[in-house]
Amino acid sequence: MLPFSRELKSTKRRRAILPTITWADSSIRIIDQRKLPLNISFLECRNIKDLRKAIQSLAVRGAPALGIAAAFGVLLGAKQIRTNDRKIFDKKIQKIFHLIKTSRPTAINLFNALSRMQSVLTENKNVSVSKIKKIFKAQALEIFQEEQQNSFQLGFYGNTLIKNKQRILTICNAGSLATVGYGTALAPIYVANDKKKKVHVYACETRPLLQGARLTTWELWRAKIDVTLICDHAAAALMRQKKIDMVFVGADRIALNGDTANKIGTYNLAILSRYHHIPFYVVAPSSTFDPNIRIGKHIPIELRDHKEITSFSSRLIAPKGIKVHNPAFDVTPYSLISAIITEKGILTPPFKKHIAEKMLS
Amino acid sequence: MLPFSRELKSTKRRRAILPTITWADSSIRIIDQRKLPLNISFLECRNIKDLRKAIQSLAVRGAPALGIAAAFGVLLGAKQIRTNDRKIFDKKIQKIFHLIKTSRPTAINLFNALSRMQSVLTENKNVSVSKIKKIFKAQALEIFQEEQQNSFQLGFYGNTLIKNKQRILTICNAGSLATVGYGTALAPIYVANDKKKKVHVYACETRPLLQGARLTTWELWRAKIDVTLICDHAAAALMRQKKIDMVFVGADRIALNGDTANKIGTYNLAILSRYHHIPFYVVAPSSTFDPNIRIGKHIPIELRDHKEITSFSSRLIAPKGIKVHNPAFDVTPYSLISAIITEKGILTPPFKKHIAEKMLS
Repeated sequence: MLPFSRELKSTKRRRAILPTITWADSSIRIIDQRKLPLNISFLECRNIKDLRKAIQSLAVRGAPALGIAAAFGVLLGAKQIRTNDRKIFDKKIQKIFHLIKTSRPTAINLFNALSRMQSVLTENKNVSVSKIKKIFKAQALEIFQEEQQNSFQLGFYGNTLIKNKQRILTICNAGSLATVGYGTALAPIYVANDKKKKVHVYACETRPLLQGARLTTWELWRAKIDVTLICDHAAAALMRQKKIDMVFVGADRIALNGDTANKIGTYNLAILSRYHHIPFYVVAPSSTFDPNIRIGKHIPIELRDHKEITSFSSRLIAPKGIKVHNPAFDVTPYSLISAIITEKGILTPPFKKHIAEKMLS
Repeated sequence: MLPFSRELKSTKRRRAILPTITWADSSIRIIDQRKLPLNISFLECRNIKDLRKAIQSLAVRGAPALGIAAAFGVLLGAKQIRTNDRKIFDKKIQKIFHLIKTSRPTAINLFNALSRMQSVLTENKNVSVSKIKKIFKAQALEIFQEEQQNSFQLGFYGNTLIKNKQRILTICNAGSLATVGYGTALAPIYVANDKKKKVHVYACETRPLLQGARLTTWELWRAKIDVTLICDHAAAALMRQKKIDMVFVGADRIALNGDTANKIGTYNLAILSRYHHIPFYVVAPSSTFDPNIRIGKHIPIELRDHKEITSFSSRLIAPKGIKVHNPAFDVTPYSLISAIITEKGILTPPFKKHIAEKMLS
């Protein structure tokens, strides 16, 4: 029996998990995260164009959710190819793969999911189109279920690090909205809460798109977990006042040496944590590790539109035409990370050795 | 002859300085900084109530500008007291002092200016009401002129630290809008620019009220100085990429040991600078030093309204009723400061000794 498998069962029974992304048979149904917390509305992606738009505009976001979106995207694309000729199908489905692959560059989960969908295609060269569509569906739903299981496992492992009444800082949204299940960085907090530990979360608002203010506070508030919103750069003073016991962050891609790409500002928090002697934990499923990236500086970092910073809901907040530098992510070097919490266990330094042993085997 | 006095003359001739705050004989005229950069509009404070409102809503802001506002406020209040009886006048003017003193708690310049106005009142106990009004005017204008001179002197000293083509990071707005003249943290940059050095400024947007995005980029852009806007927590990654050569920040109050209160996020930048071996400079006139505060933790820190973080131009950006922690300032310990640039020269560690020797004598 796997560790925590009994708890997994009871957790699933207890929790009505927020359906960030679901396969609705002829469409992909997502919570439109751009509209939270003011409106809870759903977006139906009926074709690949819809999905690409949803991914690029961050209607759906969060590394594991992007992996699921990619898998469902292949499924959706396949469904809309009207042919029984496997050669024509294979040609057309590659276009679908390409459209999804080029939607956002940093989160590896998207590429990992595509690569698994590609594998079943290659492994089943000789089956009919209707059969391959069924195989795609099974594979996509498997990815969905794995991410959900992983999320709970991350939570169970991470929870072992949390003591009653501790104060936890987090950035962006790495909760149930970013994935299926309990999320990544927030999963240990949800499990601690299930186990009646009192935890207090400080949520960095996370400029420019305010995922912390809009999403993290919202989902923790729904779960009745105590949360306080702060400006991103106010974390340092809180740490100095000894109000933060640990930091939990998610990850968009992890290199083989442990260097971790995550939301811009994560590296900032890692330095602050080191300076104040506060443990800094990355929480991520194994789908986040990139076997082809040796060190963090090879991770591609998405630069996003200047408007995310210079305007707010189409109102200018900076002089028109001003220069802007707007990377969506930064890379935290492994040396600043206390541990990486995965569904397979908690990795401690030396990360290179432990990642090779536990994550890639 | 004082250092830089020749340059001071030519600078004053060359520059049309932005009139952040002026005495308009029966009112105080300020640029309404809440409306920048979209609108350049002026606000006339015709009585103490207007002025208090302007200070509290940050229509006028910046430590040196608040000092001038306080001095002009006493002048305005005095002008409106309709009596020739010195006893009645003295009683009424104390109310004015009290109203200004309780408008904002952190910037010491406000209290220092009030204390100078109070001194001339006490020193001239026996003069007529009309005479004391004239003395007030002379004293307030002296404070105004001193801050202007100081600002240029800060710039001349600070400029000696800047080499051609260097990249300078700053937070909030400590420029001409925050004071009269060239400002504080931006003064060295203006002087370097006058001297034809090429400098590039990275402006932290400065949540929650975006003084960096709205004010710093605007005034540097007007002065044709190259500036790039970033999110506050993106500074760490820029430093890692070796794109920042030095950091200049202003100050709202400096303790006798060098601990410095400034805009929230300043302490964050100081830690990042130390981690990346980048010089971190505080730029502030001597009116910022508080002879009554021994160490930083005794500096009162203003907590501001949660709405500054949870809404934007009256639109909610976080769940209604969420807890918020919104300190306006943080304190940077002296040990993280490379030097304090004042109008009397550049102070280096040990700050306690050098502040006692140079600033309080």
